[in-house]
Amino acid sequence: MAELHEECGVFGIYSPSVQNLASLCYYGLFALQHRGQESCGIVVNDDGVFSVHKDLGLLSDVFDRETLQKFPQGTISVGHVRYGTTGGTNQANTQPIVINHMKGKMALAHNGNISNALELRTRLELGGALFHGTSDTEIIAYIVAQQRLKSPSIEAAVSKAMDSLEGAFSVVLMSSTKLIALRDPHGFRPLCMGTLEDGSIVFASESCALHAVGAAFQRDLLPGEIITVDEDGIRTDRSHCGIRPKTMCIFEYIYFARSDSLLDGVSVHEARKTAGQILARRHPVEADLVVGVPDSGLDAALGYAQESGIPFSLGFLKNRYIGRTFISPGQGNRLDLVKLKLSPIESEVRGKRVVLIDDSIVRGTTSGQIVNLLRSAGATQVHMRISSPPFRNPCYYGTDIDSRDHLIACQHSIEEIRELIGADSLGYLPLEDLKELIGSIAFCSACFSGNYPTPIPADTAKDKFEAPLSARRKENKT
Amino acid sequence: MAELHEECGVFGIYSPSVQNLASLCYYGLFALQHRGQESCGIVVNDDGVFSVHKDLGLLSDVFDRETLQKFPQGTISVGHVRYGTTGGTNQANTQPIVINHMKGKMALAHNGNISNALELRTRLELGGALFHGTSDTEIIAYIVAQQRLKSPSIEAAVSKAMDSLEGAFSVVLMSSTKLIALRDPHGFRPLCMGTLEDGSIVFASESCALHAVGAAFQRDLLPGEIITVDEDGIRTDRSHCGIRPKTMCIFEYIYFARSDSLLDGVSVHEARKTAGQILARRHPVEADLVVGVPDSGLDAALGYAQESGIPFSLGFLKNRYIGRTFISPGQGNRLDLVKLKLSPIESEVRGKRVVLIDDSIVRGTTSGQIVNLLRSAGATQVHMRISSPPFRNPCYYGTDIDSRDHLIACQHSIEEIRELIGADSLGYLPLEDLKELIGSIAFCSACFSGNYPTPIPADTAKDKFEAPLSARRKENKT
Amino acid sequence: MAELHEECGVFGIYSPSVQNLASLCYYGLFALQHRGQESCGIVVNDDGVFSVHKDLGLLSDVFDRETLQKFPQGTISVGHVRYGTTGGTNQANTQPIVINHMKGKMALAHNGNISNALELRTRLELGGALFHGTSDTEIIAYIVAQQRLKSPSIEAAVSKAMDSLEGAFSVVLMSSTKLIALRDPHGFRPLCMGTLEDGSIVFASESCALHAVGAAFQRDLLPGEIITVDEDGIRTDRSHCGIRPKTMCIFEYIYFARSDSLLDGVSVHEARKTAGQILARRHPVEADLVVGVPDSGLDAALGYAQESGIPFSLGFLKNRYIGRTFISPGQGNRLDLVKLKLSPIESEVRGKRVVLIDDSIVRGTTSGQIVNLLRSAGATQVHMRISSPPFRNPCYYGTDIDSRDHLIACQHSIEEIRELIGADSLGYLPLEDLKELIGSIAFCSACFSGNYPTPIPADTAKDKFEAPLSARRKENKT
Amino acid sequence: MAELHEECGVFGIYSPSVQNLASLCYYGLFALQHRGQESCGIVVNDDGVFSVHKDLGLLSDVFDRETLQKFPQGTISVGHVRYGTTGGTNQANTQPIVINHMKGKMALAHNGNISNALELRTRLELGGALFHGTSDTEIIAYIVAQQRLKSPSIEAAVSKAMDSLEGAFSVVLMSSTKLIALRDPHGFRPLCMGTLEDGSIVFASESCALHAVGAAFQRDLLPGEIITVDEDGIRTDRSHCGIRPKTMCIFEYIYFARSDSLLDGVSVHEARKTAGQILARRHPVEADLVVGVPDSGLDAALGYAQESGIPFSLGFLKNRYIGRTFISPGQGNRLDLVKLKLSPIESEVRGKRVVLIDDSIVRGTTSGQIVNLLRSAGATQVHMRISSPPFRNPCYYGTDIDSRDHLIACQHSIEEIRELIGADSLGYLPLEDLKELIGSIAFCSACFSGNYPTPIPADTAKDKFEAPLSARRKENKT
Repeated sequence: MAELHEECGVFGIYSPSVQNLASLCYYGLFALQHRGQESCGIVVNDDGVFSVHKDLGLLSDVFDRETLQKFPQGTISVGHVRYGTTGGTNQANTQPIVINHMKGKMALAHNGNISNALELRTRLELGGALFHGTSDTEIIAYIVAQQRLKSPSIEAAVSKAMDSLEGAFSVVLMSSTKLIALRDPHGFRPLCMGTLEDGSIVFASESCALHAVGAAFQRDLLPGEIITVDEDGIRTDRSHCGIRPKTMCIFEYIYFARSDSLLDGVSVHEARKTAGQILARRHPVEADLVVGVPDSGLDAALGYAQESGIPFSLGFLKNRYIGRTFISPGQGNRLDLVKLKLSPIESEVRGKRVVLIDDSIVRGTTSGQIVNLLRSAGATQVHMRISSPPFRNPCYYGTDIDSRDHLIACQHSIEEIRELIGADSLGYLPLEDLKELIGSIAFCSACFSGNYPTPIPADTAKDKFEAPLSARRKENKT
Repeated sequence: MAELHEECGVFGIYSPSVQNLASLCYYGLFALQHRGQESCGIVVNDDGVFSVHKDLGLLSDVFDRETLQKFPQGTISVGHVRYGTTGGTNQANTQPIVINHMKGKMALAHNGNISNALELRTRLELGGALFHGTSDTEIIAYIVAQQRLKSPSIEAAVSKAMDSLEGAFSVVLMSSTKLIALRDPHGFRPLCMGTLEDGSIVFASESCALHAVGAAFQRDLLPGEIITVDEDGIRTDRSHCGIRPKTMCIFEYIYFARSDSLLDGVSVHEARKTAGQILARRHPVEADLVVGVPDSGLDAALGYAQESGIPFSLGFLKNRYIGRTFISPGQGNRLDLVKLKLSPIESEVRGKRVVLIDDSIVRGTTSGQIVNLLRSAGATQVHMRISSPPFRNPCYYGTDIDSRDHLIACQHSIEEIRELIGADSLGYLPLEDLKELIGSIAFCSACFSGNYPTPIPADTAKDKFEAPLSARRKENKT
Repeated sequence: MAELHEECGVFGIYSPSVQNLASLCYYGLFALQHRGQESCGIVVNDDGVFSVHKDLGLLSDVFDRETLQKFPQGTISVGHVRYGTTGGTNQANTQPIVINHMKGKMALAHNGNISNALELRTRLELGGALFHGTSDTEIIAYIVAQQRLKSPSIEAAVSKAMDSLEGAFSVVLMSSTKLIALRDPHGFRPLCMGTLEDGSIVFASESCALHAVGAAFQRDLLPGEIITVDEDGIRTDRSHCGIRPKTMCIFEYIYFARSDSLLDGVSVHEARKTAGQILARRHPVEADLVVGVPDSGLDAALGYAQESGIPFSLGFLKNRYIGRTFISPGQGNRLDLVKLKLSPIESEVRGKRVVLIDDSIVRGTTSGQIVNLLRSAGATQVHMRISSPPFRNPCYYGTDIDSRDHLIACQHSIEEIRELIGADSLGYLPLEDLKELIGSIAFCSACFSGNYPTPIPADTAKDKFEAPLSARRKENKT
Repeated sequence: MAELHEECGVFGIYSPSVQNLASLCYYGLFALQHRGQESCGIVVNDDGVFSVHKDLGLLSDVFDRETLQKFPQGTISVGHVRYGTTGGTNQANTQPIVINHMKGKMALAHNGNISNALELRTRLELGGALFHGTSDTEIIAYIVAQQRLKSPSIEAAVSKAMDSLEGAFSVVLMSSTKLIALRDPHGFRPLCMGTLEDGSIVFASESCALHAVGAAFQRDLLPGEIITVDEDGIRTDRSHCGIRPKTMCIFEYIYFARSDSLLDGVSVHEARKTAGQILARRHPVEADLVVGVPDSGLDAALGYAQESGIPFSLGFLKNRYIGRTFISPGQGNRLDLVKLKLSPIESEVRGKRVVLIDDSIVRGTTSGQIVNLLRSAGATQVHMRISSPPFRNPCYYGTDIDSRDHLIACQHSIEEIRELIGADSLGYLPLEDLKELIGSIAFCSACFSGNYPTPIPADTAKDKFEAPLSARRKENKT
């Protein structure tokens, strides 16, 4: 039940033969919807003609049968889902972005955050560049377009652009004739490739989207790899591979990704189950039941149960109908949003000592309410276990972490947090155990540890990453 | 993952003090949304003025903030959610229905099916009655209104009406000044009562709706009981209690109700877990994992795992974003709807012998696809266990069971079904074990056994319950 | 710019050959949209299967391409547009109404008001009848359905029903196999018949709807006539013709009908022009320009100009984009709704003495604002001429006239009204001249004269027609 | 009934005191809706925070009460309406555009076309500029932003930018603290200024929008004038005034503008009436009636009638309900869109010789259908008179004229056109008489004469203005 957000999921396909490419992109994005619920979009390239449809909302809000049918057949398509900030509805930042430059057209879908965006944007603006939105994606587009003026091909321009870009960027990019997928040299965000039976090439943020569209998983992109697909086939440019240490985001495994996905060869479900097992070893407790907060706490709860021998239980019912358009109860209502969403199964927990597993604690309010729900359903003890270390630092690579002022772990000791959320005991996953989750893969855990794999933006005095220059000015889009 | 539907959930509240009664009704219905997704509605009674809003769609489609705010304050409110037949979009059958009769106004919300509807409707039509829709609820309204002409009070009319009505009916009914809740003498469908802290009275199909609105559960209505609430307080009429044997619908426990509900004192979650335990005893198998089809198969899977000692696993990921407005892949797409909805967690099932638990098999198609998903994810064996007996008979009390032509268990032996769905073994819950699920409560299992607790409509030659007379004529509402 | 409303326009077609009958009905209703903007609906009969779509809103709100395409082919269709009361959004009163009775199905669309509705409804309710809405149309349906039980055919039942019904009713009614059109014996409301080239029969409230769908006008129905169309052809029942004096509503000519329609052989445009000519003779004035309030005052303005020799002018621009969804300026805005809708053409009126023609004055507020608009645009004098006599009485035959408390002519002398609206002079069409508008046709002018052609409801003490019994109780539908 | 489109209407307001600035902008745009129906938008500046809402559709589609209320109070606001190309739904081109540049934020709303856009865009793209859409407005934004880097103020940058821009541009532009209105040195498109009682400054494309919001008209902007409003008051920069000959678009008077507007001191209504008078002198004919095609032909028809002495008639009824969402009859329907929109008043035209006035003939199809409507209503002769000269040339200044291939006057002689549309005679307004319409104002009539007041784009070989470079490539936005 983490209240964190990541920026986006991407999908791309190159296929001379698939019927109704836009539909396939739509189904692929459906499997990535958990990575972003604010806005979404699809661009189809039909012999150089780009057809775009994107808007604020879930896929089911933005696309209907008529919209999908209006897309031309096409041979290349890219799509995007974007995360949702509360209340923020900014059409200017919807993706994929489509831009016209000297040498043609380009559509980009991006997952991640450029950590030197401030510097790049300032440089571009000094050169007279205009920005319509505040996303980093426009910066990538500019750098690629400027390189394109002096490069023999779009893929060469992308390769040059990679020299300037720092931070996290998994991108699918489409020109009039080519589909290009690239992953930053650190490999912060996942990106994988698959193939359909007819040889069509598919790229997606997570392997679950490959399965959804019937594509066979081929492999993850290497950190720094650029893959180009066109009528001549597939080419890979690995000139940026290995120039930086790999630092895959550990929180992808803990929370962001779908549990049926494999990221860089590691099963997300297994990583979460392992976290639960570690918790059982590090923070054992005598109890009658292990209950996970649905849905993200279930895998770790199963791991904790297996390791501890305490029975796993389905202690909560989650209301599946409460979505984006749900009308939250106001102040006067005395009704509790958490209570409407989550309901304890009283017959299961009454009179029991419960181990409660969740993936993280951000501000602590929700955790407190969940603990309270269990108690009012009759649980005699509630032992909270968190399948990640405490959040204490901002992320510059695409995770939207609350400011330090709001992070409970920045303001309070673990014992104080336990007190605040009303648990009988509280245990976090130790920082040093994170590495066990995903085997030999090098990862970034800066949000927990504060050890950043790249230089961080100059104004780190601030708690939270700030958009550069013009974007830094106050803004409020209705 | 049952493809069965029940007709409806009901909610009613009498409160002189609650702020914004319509909102409270809305939140109560949200907890009952699983009982009906075709249409929904709320009526608020503000000093005899009835305000109605109802339409086809989910609560989140039909109600927005503005709609809720337009309702007057009010002191009595009734609400309804109705089940969804494929393609059927019939505004005339939305509920609650509001009618004007000689002595005033009345709003009714109904869950169930009147088994002598044909006979009653014919009699009413011969007397010149008109029907706007095809639901039984209009019949109840007519009978009550006609009794009202000769009765001193609305509750007396309801009591008289109960003498004529046969079959299943849990109803909340509102006049200008009273809220009345009634449950048929067989007690086919659940109905319970709760109280808010300020003494407001709440009725709901399931206890989970009481919890959602912060009401304390008081008790279930007795079969045949009529409870009237008005400014003089609460009165109960038990003159119809005990005149028929109690025959609570067993399928409420197996599939319809939410697992956190208590129906007639029995936990739905426990009943399902018990079903899983019985399955483990009756159909044991050597296997590595127990996997439930989410969400309805999870409780029984846990029970099977606990009883058998085979580890419980989260073998499937269910896409939570696929809802009513999802655009199903067409024929040309080679994409599989089940595959988009359900995704096996490969790391969990690869190389494993899996016990797969679901609540029922209707036509068999979906079951076959799910078995297939597991096999393509690498499961070496798939042993299917069903937490109910085979469906073989129509229901005349509110469950929309497919015609015998489509019920796989009417057409095939169990061994043939196993073959058809491609499982290595197949076991149903034995009919004789159903009684263990819910303790001492007498229940109806006619859909499995064919033993109907009431006379059934005359034209039973037919497989499927037919609406009477005028309704029986062909119809097709856009 | 009358602020009066009529209840409805009706359309019906019987055609074994027309493609997409629902579309044709839709286009016919579009030509009748001026008769009702609150709600609309279409029912198509495809071999006894009735498909319905109706809702609150304009045709352009309620129907889209998909909705129209979903209708089956069909051979009979009826449609309806209904007038809009401010704020009233009552789904229960949308038409056509579709009902099921002992002998089958029936769909009705009705224009008019039953003047003995109170008495009929009481009688029906005492017999146990229920009413879902408050419209008279349900009463007609009941009477017809009850007669149907003892009649050999639906048309015989309709004929019998006509004996009981008093007041205004132009109805198109469809059974499984027949289309029936009927007009009350007084002929209050218009109804005409036309034919398509392929012999299809069309009925419509006004001839403009025949032209819109390419039908040739055949004739108006006689007062009291019942025409039945089925596979055996057309039959007319004139047994009710001539039993009552003809009393066609004069206000149809003055305001309701579209100026390109012919009603009972008289051109609406000509009637209005004649009214203007009479005004010029009865209330001459020295002036520089004649200006009509668009759109309904233009025809009379042309007549006034022609008769008086004062030049006709287009003195106002009407904003064509201000429709149902326009957001009215609130109190704090100091903006004036009339000013947003109507704008004087200053170059035309500055320094001029203006004769201003409108069709009626109801409350007087709007008229005052329009006079004021002309003055602020520089008109030196404004002489108001109204192409109808003063409204002073309620209508029991389908016109929604404000209560006497609000009718300015009930509260004030003509001189006072002139003063209140700020005009230099004011002249109404004299009551005795009404007959000149439409030649030899006998008409009803009760709203002006108070001479009602039928007995009026018992409780005439009241200013305004009251719905009978149950409907009379307070109500407020959201 | 011209089938031509102009690009846009603009509105801007600077007001420290007006309540709910966004609403005022909304009402102003409503009065300009005739200038553009494809898309619309409003930006409000609240102390440097820009809130934007814009989308495809009419104001009534894009804005609802909630949307308007979400805007902050604000002190500066700009708005835009954009014209509708058939089927084109391109979100990327909605306005006002909001961009971020080195020195801050900027919102622009633009009416007109830059005639050296190709050259400017190429230059910008060579410098690495990206374009999100295909409108000229992005070019203006770029030039201003680049000048801003070297200018002391935004108004100085605008003044510099004016040196580079050629063609038509009436722009309102907002920075964090200033509202700037500018009109190109030719004064192709109108732009005027007004004041509210509290001293607030309003700019609008036409004076009718000032009246709508209760603002007093102050004056038209001079060609080349730049007016800046901020907390220090109003400043005007006339350094570009007089450097080019004034060439106001004559078609603004003939068709685009609302007849109640005054453009550069000339009444649109009077200009049209004058055109009618000239037609009566140049193309006299013996006839019984003068009929204008509503609404744009009415003013000229009145002029023709007055000059010729032939009676003016309201010969057509226009269906006011047929709007954007109207479902056009398909091929199979044999129904005629023109017939659904326009209906002749038969009683008026039967047996008459009719002079029919329209503002222009583009392809000729519609004119033919209208002539035909009159004949089938019984007109014995139809003499068509057009209140403008024949269209023969593309416009580079903001009017969307069909390609020469489709312009009937490029393909046929006037006698041939008469034959094609089926009129008895046909007369256009002579080119040499255009000057009489608007007195001493110098105007552009290039679309009629081919005399362009500026150099025209290099590739004039082509019939139609082409967007430069990247935009010139094929494209198709869904």
